[in-house]
Amino acid sequence: MSKYMDVHHGMKGITADQLREAHRRDLAIEAEEGVHFERAWADPKSGTVYCLSEAPSADAVKRVHAQAGHPVTEVHPVPLTIE
Amino acid sequence: MSKYMDVHHGMKGITADQLREAHRRDLAIEAEEGVHFERAWADPKSGTVYCLSEAPSADAVKRVHAQAGHPVTEVHPVPLTIE
Repeated sequence: MSKYMDVHHGMKGITADQLREAHRRDLAIEAEEGVHFERAWADPKSGTVYCLSEAPSADAVKRVHAQAGHPVTEVHPVPLTIE
Repeated sequence: MSKYMDVHHGMKGITADQLREAHRRDLAIEAEEGVHFERAWADPKSGTVYCLSEAPSADAVKRVHAQAGHPVTEVHPVPLTIE
């Protein structure tokens, strides 16, 4: 298991409710892939969303986000953390 | 005060010690700008570092990072958070 930071683009105007709902959809199915989405941050102005997860692989992160309806191409392992 | 995510590039090979030391340098001077750096994540392979802060402005974040010796150009407000 490793930490991953994934970055969504093109989500201009996203609201707090929409972010919570997207996160809820991830949480509902993440166990199938052994992923856990821990945190998320969004900038509605630029349309950027950052998600922090603990996952077995970047592909597992991608599969959960895709199945939840918000596919992502940019997934970065972040093995070093200060939290 | 708002949350900001800033992104450093070109830090390939960064070690856990180097990340901790960089964070320590930020913490040592951040109060001058009213900033607090809360978390950081690094990918030594791609050389990317993400820092999460609470700050009065993106410029304040930039000034602290620059003064600490690791200037950053990419600073994104992230007013929506799930933590």
